[in-house]
Amino acid sequence: MQIGFIGLGAMGAAMAMNLFESGFKVQVFNRNPARTEPLRKAGATVAASPAQAADQSDVVFSMVADDTALVAVTLGETGILAGLKPGALHISLSTIGVDTAQDLTVRHRVAGSGFVSATVFGRPDAAAARKLFIMAAGADEHLKVAVPLLEHLGQSVGIVGADPSQANLVKLIGNFMLSVIIETLGEACAVAGKAGIDPEHLVGLLTNANFNAPPYKIYGPMIASQRFQPAGFALPLGQKDNRLMLAAAEALGVPLPLASLVRDRFLAVRAQGIGAEHDWSAMALCALSEAGVRAQPAEKP
Amino acid sequence: MQIGFIGLGAMGAAMAMNLFESGFKVQVFNRNPARTEPLRKAGATVAASPAQAADQSDVVFSMVADDTALVAVTLGETGILAGLKPGALHISLSTIGVDTAQDLTVRHRVAGSGFVSATVFGRPDAAAARKLFIMAAGADEHLKVAVPLLEHLGQSVGIVGADPSQANLVKLIGNFMLSVIIETLGEACAVAGKAGIDPEHLVGLLTNANFNAPPYKIYGPMIASQRFQPAGFALPLGQKDNRLMLAAAEALGVPLPLASLVRDRFLAVRAQGIGAEHDWSAMALCALSEAGVRAQPAEKP
Amino acid sequence: MQIGFIGLGAMGAAMAMNLFESGFKVQVFNRNPARTEPLRKAGATVAASPAQAADQSDVVFSMVADDTALVAVTLGETGILAGLKPGALHISLSTIGVDTAQDLTVRHRVAGSGFVSATVFGRPDAAAARKLFIMAAGADEHLKVAVPLLEHLGQSVGIVGADPSQANLVKLIGNFMLSVIIETLGEACAVAGKAGIDPEHLVGLLTNANFNAPPYKIYGPMIASQRFQPAGFALPLGQKDNRLMLAAAEALGVPLPLASLVRDRFLAVRAQGIGAEHDWSAMALCALSEAGVRAQPAEKP
Amino acid sequence: MQIGFIGLGAMGAAMAMNLFESGFKVQVFNRNPARTEPLRKAGATVAASPAQAADQSDVVFSMVADDTALVAVTLGETGILAGLKPGALHISLSTIGVDTAQDLTVRHRVAGSGFVSATVFGRPDAAAARKLFIMAAGADEHLKVAVPLLEHLGQSVGIVGADPSQANLVKLIGNFMLSVIIETLGEACAVAGKAGIDPEHLVGLLTNANFNAPPYKIYGPMIASQRFQPAGFALPLGQKDNRLMLAAAEALGVPLPLASLVRDRFLAVRAQGIGAEHDWSAMALCALSEAGVRAQPAEKP
Repeated sequence: MQIGFIGLGAMGAAMAMNLFESGFKVQVFNRNPARTEPLRKAGATVAASPAQAADQSDVVFSMVADDTALVAVTLGETGILAGLKPGALHISLSTIGVDTAQDLTVRHRVAGSGFVSATVFGRPDAAAARKLFIMAAGADEHLKVAVPLLEHLGQSVGIVGADPSQANLVKLIGNFMLSVIIETLGEACAVAGKAGIDPEHLVGLLTNANFNAPPYKIYGPMIASQRFQPAGFALPLGQKDNRLMLAAAEALGVPLPLASLVRDRFLAVRAQGIGAEHDWSAMALCALSEAGVRAQPAEKP
Repeated sequence: MQIGFIGLGAMGAAMAMNLFESGFKVQVFNRNPARTEPLRKAGATVAASPAQAADQSDVVFSMVADDTALVAVTLGETGILAGLKPGALHISLSTIGVDTAQDLTVRHRVAGSGFVSATVFGRPDAAAARKLFIMAAGADEHLKVAVPLLEHLGQSVGIVGADPSQANLVKLIGNFMLSVIIETLGEACAVAGKAGIDPEHLVGLLTNANFNAPPYKIYGPMIASQRFQPAGFALPLGQKDNRLMLAAAEALGVPLPLASLVRDRFLAVRAQGIGAEHDWSAMALCALSEAGVRAQPAEKP
Repeated sequence: MQIGFIGLGAMGAAMAMNLFESGFKVQVFNRNPARTEPLRKAGATVAASPAQAADQSDVVFSMVADDTALVAVTLGETGILAGLKPGALHISLSTIGVDTAQDLTVRHRVAGSGFVSATVFGRPDAAAARKLFIMAAGADEHLKVAVPLLEHLGQSVGIVGADPSQANLVKLIGNFMLSVIIETLGEACAVAGKAGIDPEHLVGLLTNANFNAPPYKIYGPMIASQRFQPAGFALPLGQKDNRLMLAAAEALGVPLPLASLVRDRFLAVRAQGIGAEHDWSAMALCALSEAGVRAQPAEKP
Repeated sequence: MQIGFIGLGAMGAAMAMNLFESGFKVQVFNRNPARTEPLRKAGATVAASPAQAADQSDVVFSMVADDTALVAVTLGETGILAGLKPGALHISLSTIGVDTAQDLTVRHRVAGSGFVSATVFGRPDAAAARKLFIMAAGADEHLKVAVPLLEHLGQSVGIVGADPSQANLVKLIGNFMLSVIIETLGEACAVAGKAGIDPEHLVGLLTNANFNAPPYKIYGPMIASQRFQPAGFALPLGQKDNRLMLAAAEALGVPLPLASLVRDRFLAVRAQGIGAEHDWSAMALCALSEAGVRAQPAEKP
């Protein structure tokens, strides 16, 4: 099977390499060609455009930064859809908005192609280790093709439903839940700190008890120690996903007080001079700052 | 070693039985004597008052419903302190306020007794199976006595600090974090439901991915199915702990927007006719109700 | 002076008539021509398009429903800008977003025309009685022309600044402040009602004391009596302005917890079946409903 | 008619003097006797205790700082109740909690005395100028006596109901509404400031339009200029009233999201080093601070 892969950021590069190492023929494209080198050296083909990566492929994966980037690599003269063979499949791995996914679903159907959203939970090291949790949604006939491929990329593939955008919504829900964990840990560490309990000790106690899921273990120590660099997932990306979640919920007519609080936290932390180079868990600085236990004064914006 | 045990609710009865079965001599007291029967039959002694349960014991455990109950069994003519031998130890297992713990710490010190707070995470089945997570705090000399005993009751004993009330604060923080998970799941299920994703399916997907900690697995299915009976932890108890957390944080000068939101949720769900017989996760009905996806109309208050 | 007037809703019709009665030559346009009749009968000219209303005018006013409508009547072949003479002035009275105002300001400058935002506080009866409060912003040279005209339309004209969009922001701030008053009154009436104080009596007491500004007097009785029809300002319009305010604040990097709360209230009240025919103060039903004192059960969505 | 007056703070002193100047025989008591001097010089009698001020009076007014102070001057051997003649009336002017008012109502009834709550809206200058807005509640027979006296103290006397605590609730509702105005103005000034509109100018525009009630005119300029000293109403008093409001609403089963937000604001502003010498409107610093437009860095706590 011939596979195209568009977007070789930290996540995409690891996933493309895994597909290549699983024995698939892989043709890659990345806007910045420097990032194609490792795959080229390993034996993958480098395409000059998304369309070229698509035109001999049975399946094209895309893993790009946001809605705008996905639309850019999908539509237009040199986009995936322009190259995709009739009946071929586009598996979108990016975290994008529900409305964009719905729009792309229609455009692929009209063009006679398939579209599957397969969103991923996990950081680059999990991608490299094929330990991602993947949530896929799309028509049965497309999932039949997609799921066996996705199983090369992660430790589990959950099927969300028949509408691709549902997988995007589940991804946004997941990131929403993570953002609330971040705020929760910020408030918890603020209380503990003022009561004379070292926040790092608190986090250790809790994650050794029933808060033993990865998000608490990953974000707890960062927040307790107030160290938010290097960014595993950058502040503006977290803010973007919060925005997408609020937009999706608004379109569905669902108020989300927790997401609204997180929205205000993102705006506040950035207004206080915390820049894009910080991990999104830096949002917890708001709770620490309000309680007067922030480690150092805000840098000036 | 002679042990007293005051308070034989579902949690206390299981813990007292475990101590007895571990070979300790156990003398129990419960306000409602009917609940002492199983322990009496097993071979434990039944005391007529907390003081009597204390007066030949090296260590007295207490596990009661709230601050008022703990003060009632501890102080007064027939209370634990009245019976406790000089140098003996009171290990308080109850979820109580920080201020009550601080007050009792002083009173025990004045009386020449020891006081340790050892709070427990887990439900009655975990108590029976010695699977509790326990957080202990107190003076080193008292912990030296307490920890080996507590190890008979749970799967881990974390040491919080030297001030007993810190273990109570960690318990309140833990319940605060659980309450936020409940609200988060309510909002997530509301969004999913309106997007055509069965909330039970959503919960399954998430808890099979990175939200695989017990709280998500316990509360997720209850909230997704909107089934809140029987109550594992009753609504008024959750509301009480929220109140204690807000009071502790206020005394420390820490704003907790998430706990404030939860506070309002508790008031709202009860004002809409959801009674004390429901699990505290029924708080999630607020998010579901606001989104118009609550399964059945509220009963009248 | 020749004046064009685009948009003859309840507000626009009253303002256009006032200009006509003040002695100006007025040429009007409305998408639905039936609404031009009263002005035509009075002696005003009816144009076939915004461009035609503009092409002999020194000043064109526009008063339309939202950003989309304003863009539609301003741009395009038959839009205001296509007809406007070099040096002529467009005074935009509509409640629109800051970004739209900024965009239109640039487009008018490029076209050699003037653009002033003059936003209005007050309902149709105030418009008819020339009792509006008007906030104007724009270049000095344009305000010199605009302000004397605006003085025919209201009881005061405040100058916000040199950038037209600032007047739009002040309007959005004003509506934001009104929305918070609505929520405040909802919460106040909920408390009073459950304490046995008739909410209508409460509102009377407060508005006879220091809460004697129009918003309390207008919205207080509606909320206290839970009567939200007919709509003075319809629910979807209030929701739109909340959205515009949040967008403007986000672009400026300002968290607005109160506007976020109002956002969730709008979503909730609509999800519970309160439709577009209600006044935006129906948002207060959320607070009443949460407290269990809503007069009648929600209609089904 | 013989009148006793307990509590000669800035408010009480002005009111006692007005009663004296209206021709009543007035006997005053204040914990700190220095503050009785002006009244003594004017011709009023100074009592050695609340009981003594009460024992020859037909009506005793009290105006003290909080619930604790009112209980202290009312109960006990030298308290008002100990001195009050059968059938005499205690008019409580203080801002206190609903539960304290309910308790005192019962105690007076049992003692054969009358109890009226008459809460006041206005600052010391309004008290001196007899411009207070007064809200009175109590049994008809007691109001018959109280209202004509209260009319000497303010510009209007509203009758809330037959239960004295209802007047206390209305006062708390009023202060709750003021606290929301403060937060609203903070958020509005943050947005305006970042959009290049001088917040003081914004406040001028709004209070000249439909936000022309005293609270906007009083707090607007303070918040816009970020000047919170001297305190007209000190931060801890505002915080106390917020606490009383939340307690009253909780007892009634009413969630108050706005009061919860204000609660967190009070905690945050104090945790950031703003002390008791500031006006309660300094709470608006939170919104300004979050937006990055706070004038000067927080002093250290």
